[in-house]
Amino acid sequence: MQFIRINMSEQTVKVEDVPQDYVGLGGRGLTSIMINNEVPPTCDPLGPENKLIFAPGLLSGTSLVNTSRISIGAKSPLTGTIKESNAGGTVAAALGKLGITAIIVEGLAPQGKLFNLIIDQNGNAALQAADNFKGMRTYALVEILLQDHGEKNGVLCIGPAGEYQLSSASIQSSDVDGRPCRAAGRGGLGAVMGAKGIKAIVISRQGKNPDAIADPESFKESAKVFAKAVKDHPFSGQMLGALGTAGLVSAVNSIGAFPSYNATKGVFEGWEKISGEALAETIQKRGGQTTHMGCSQCIIRCSNVFVDDGGKYVTASLEYETIWSMGGMPGIDDLDVIARLDFLSDDIGLDTMNTGVAIGVAMDAGYKEFGDGQAAIELMEEIAKGTEIGKVLGNGPAAVGKHFNHHRVPVAKGQSIAAYDPRGMQGNGVTYATSPMGADHTAGNLVGAYLGGVLNPLEAEGQVKASRKAQISMASLDCTGLCLLAGAALAAPDVSEALLKMINAKLGTQMGADDIPALGIRVLKAELEFNRNAGFTNKDDRLAKFFYEEPLPPHNKVFAVTDEDLDNTLDFK
Amino acid sequence: MQFIRINMSEQTVKVEDVPQDYVGLGGRGLTSIMINNEVPPTCDPLGPENKLIFAPGLLSGTSLVNTSRISIGAKSPLTGTIKESNAGGTVAAALGKLGITAIIVEGLAPQGKLFNLIIDQNGNAALQAADNFKGMRTYALVEILLQDHGEKNGVLCIGPAGEYQLSSASIQSSDVDGRPCRAAGRGGLGAVMGAKGIKAIVISRQGKNPDAIADPESFKESAKVFAKAVKDHPFSGQMLGALGTAGLVSAVNSIGAFPSYNATKGVFEGWEKISGEALAETIQKRGGQTTHMGCSQCIIRCSNVFVDDGGKYVTASLEYETIWSMGGMPGIDDLDVIARLDFLSDDIGLDTMNTGVAIGVAMDAGYKEFGDGQAAIELMEEIAKGTEIGKVLGNGPAAVGKHFNHHRVPVAKGQSIAAYDPRGMQGNGVTYATSPMGADHTAGNLVGAYLGGVLNPLEAEGQVKASRKAQISMASLDCTGLCLLAGAALAAPDVSEALLKMINAKLGTQMGADDIPALGIRVLKAELEFNRNAGFTNKDDRLAKFFYEEPLPPHNKVFAVTDEDLDNTLDFK
Repeated sequence: MQFIRINMSEQTVKVEDVPQDYVGLGGRGLTSIMINNEVPPTCDPLGPENKLIFAPGLLSGTSLVNTSRISIGAKSPLTGTIKESNAGGTVAAALGKLGITAIIVEGLAPQGKLFNLIIDQNGNAALQAADNFKGMRTYALVEILLQDHGEKNGVLCIGPAGEYQLSSASIQSSDVDGRPCRAAGRGGLGAVMGAKGIKAIVISRQGKNPDAIADPESFKESAKVFAKAVKDHPFSGQMLGALGTAGLVSAVNSIGAFPSYNATKGVFEGWEKISGEALAETIQKRGGQTTHMGCSQCIIRCSNVFVDDGGKYVTASLEYETIWSMGGMPGIDDLDVIARLDFLSDDIGLDTMNTGVAIGVAMDAGYKEFGDGQAAIELMEEIAKGTEIGKVLGNGPAAVGKHFNHHRVPVAKGQSIAAYDPRGMQGNGVTYATSPMGADHTAGNLVGAYLGGVLNPLEAEGQVKASRKAQISMASLDCTGLCLLAGAALAAPDVSEALLKMINAKLGTQMGADDIPALGIRVLKAELEFNRNAGFTNKDDRLAKFFYEEPLPPHNKVFAVTDEDLDNTLDFK
Repeated sequence: MQFIRINMSEQTVKVEDVPQDYVGLGGRGLTSIMINNEVPPTCDPLGPENKLIFAPGLLSGTSLVNTSRISIGAKSPLTGTIKESNAGGTVAAALGKLGITAIIVEGLAPQGKLFNLIIDQNGNAALQAADNFKGMRTYALVEILLQDHGEKNGVLCIGPAGEYQLSSASIQSSDVDGRPCRAAGRGGLGAVMGAKGIKAIVISRQGKNPDAIADPESFKESAKVFAKAVKDHPFSGQMLGALGTAGLVSAVNSIGAFPSYNATKGVFEGWEKISGEALAETIQKRGGQTTHMGCSQCIIRCSNVFVDDGGKYVTASLEYETIWSMGGMPGIDDLDVIARLDFLSDDIGLDTMNTGVAIGVAMDAGYKEFGDGQAAIELMEEIAKGTEIGKVLGNGPAAVGKHFNHHRVPVAKGQSIAAYDPRGMQGNGVTYATSPMGADHTAGNLVGAYLGGVLNPLEAEGQVKASRKAQISMASLDCTGLCLLAGAALAAPDVSEALLKMINAKLGTQMGADDIPALGIRVLKAELEFNRNAGFTNKDDRLAKFFYEEPLPPHNKVFAVTDEDLDNTLDFK
């Protein structure tokens, strides 16, 4: 239970016991509550007052499956709001095993200076000059770092986009094979890391000092229940292993909510060429891996390894949101191009969603043709080079809309929506509009309810309630380090009880069932408070205008949830 | 008393009597109250719901001197706030003589279509296709328009910047010599005009249908008192005629409040080369005009005509704020370069202030060297061409700061400050921070109080009270059509009484002395209400961080007015 506080202005590293106020918090709960306590809400996100906080979940580092999600928090340079961006890979489990509750990066390195932070198997942390890594893309960087420090390390790092402090810059996280192909993409937190002057954090995966579990037997028993439920659930146990998240392409297209050609259509003409089925077939034919373990302790294996027609590695893992943002939005129906764009995003250090949507907006504005994959690849290289147009694109869809005077910019609070159109899935629109994170599907995704037929996606009725519930659930789940895909199993009462028991067993607490949503509400309240103090009002809790005005084919609906209903969504007073 | 309502979506022109609610309002009072009533506060400033309103002052078109200021109002694409931008020239007097209380432009023309609005001497208004003027700069445009329609017209128009809908785009206004060298510069209203699809408004100066004056004798008598006072006042009667507003260069430098080298110094090293005295000497030597009538009915003659060393026209009028923004801020101490930059701003249709400061920020970020006049001229041409970097620059200092990741961006609500550093003139900082217009010196400038020694510019004490009073005065003055330079005379009780009498005489009202500030407060309240409904809070009523953190030499003060005091400035409840 230790904090590592790094002051980049003075390049000091301080290890401290977790202060009493923060004991029992992990993941998003810890990052959001700390940021609300410690970061001045009106500060410059790229200035010295902002803090960049890395926190594994409460259950990361334990034996429980699928608990290697790391929460990264800061004030976002993209949205201006508080932000938690969540990534898989190996580092959350690694930090848990080292007994490190959070890494807190403060201050700013002297301009132009770059450092790596190295954390060894005993939990000792040290800064090392990294000027020689300047400008390096992430795959090359991580290869060298793992050579230098050993393969049994996890890496968090930024690419050129983070060094340029672009608003779509990601923090890349290495997978179990040592590839920086997992991303904390949302909110431009790579720009914050770049501003702080940190190129990479190398974390030993060989720690043997996890926080004690108060009741190991109870924990073990419930962990088994949970793992079995994840395996048995049709979504996490079957569909995801077979098709990955890409299985959603055909499903969301079938209900007309797959935003295509910069959200002018809800069905993508070429969806069959980029569906999960097409992806699996392509990978299989070429000898890639249709299923693959990307994150420590993962039993879902939604990951895949995409190879070219010569069998050579292109990218891992090609996921639903990327197939949408780099496929549907710019109108590209070629999996090879999409896979290349995914790799480039990881390598340059960019959020695939914000970047694909930015390219889609530029195409819609007439800068390039929809469907021109070669142009999209060239635009990615412009971002990598930091050219004028590259910077505009790398700052995301809102910057592109401003640059080209284009009104159709599918964002909320400056961040792109995800692969669920708010006109075809109205409740996801409620989440985009009201989440303290800006448009973020992981803050409360209702796709399961729509595909399962329990909620009509096209009517306003019932959406606010469903979004509120999902947002509260996600805010508590994001505290645990659990993957949201594993979270599907939690709908069953015995599984959610198992989760409660594990949290109690880990912390030695006696929480009841109500305490889990109460934790989610506490986290959301801290986030909302930060945003209010940063100057946000309910006027900001709105989608881009065109969602209210331009009907989306094939259902030809507009976003129909009223402002009053949006304002009630997270009104906990 | 007529409104001309133009619907650009349908290209219709409708003349209507002024509705009772708006009778007795003019200038900023009319534009702001109408916008607050009629424009949805969260609308896209460049979309069809925004309205662009042109309103001469209450006294424009009468015999009173210096009343040809036109108020142009809209929701600003630069600041997102309500905006009134105020220009001199001939059109306000012309509209007054036509009995036109306002031109209200609504909707959006079909994309890519451009129109001119022609208003003849009988007040008949018609739209004409203007596609052949596409891309034309303002000097060439106005020359053709005055050839086509006759010299006795005034013109409001946009250049390429307005057509690109850049956030620093101005609306240029022709002077008495038919040159488009007067600007409604602030707030990017040229972009709104560009979005509406209007290239120019040509207004006959031969109207003979001014609104009746209720008590012509009383009006005439008071108008004489006022004119004499303007003539007798040392500022408006002597200094401005001799040196123009450029006389302020030496004065503001002498008290260390002239923001230089992107506001890193309060005294500009080369100030003697760009002072009012140097300007007058240069113009005199070359046979230009050191004093000149720019606006209809002007008796101050602060204008000048700058010529090159061959005696050829370069620009009119070279003013204090431009000498600062194109001189002090980018560190350029060459009047020929500054005059060229001023001409280019007018010709391309750009706010000299927002644009000069944008160039200064780019230089400070290392993109070009401070003092490189040739580079500055080239950057202006980039804006004119609409290149990638040109668009960034043309969107103003905040866009440039974002693009180059540069923290030192001297703005409030996204709009550049003016030529008075808030650390060296703390009360101007209060106005920049709290004005509903964003940083805008004309909303409440205290330079007179500082130069006159009645207020210490470096201490926080007394600034809020002084700014509040000045903001209220300006809000009422901006209703009248009077030039703020003539307003200096209003400090004397008999002169302000003369103004009150003229307003009563014009309108047939019985207002008392308190009704004038009450009108100012009413206007400010409407503006503040619009901004609140657009999502602005007191968190937005702050200066850029660096003003609080980086002391300004030579006095080495930071901005010291507390947030609480700022919040009280315009708290009228």
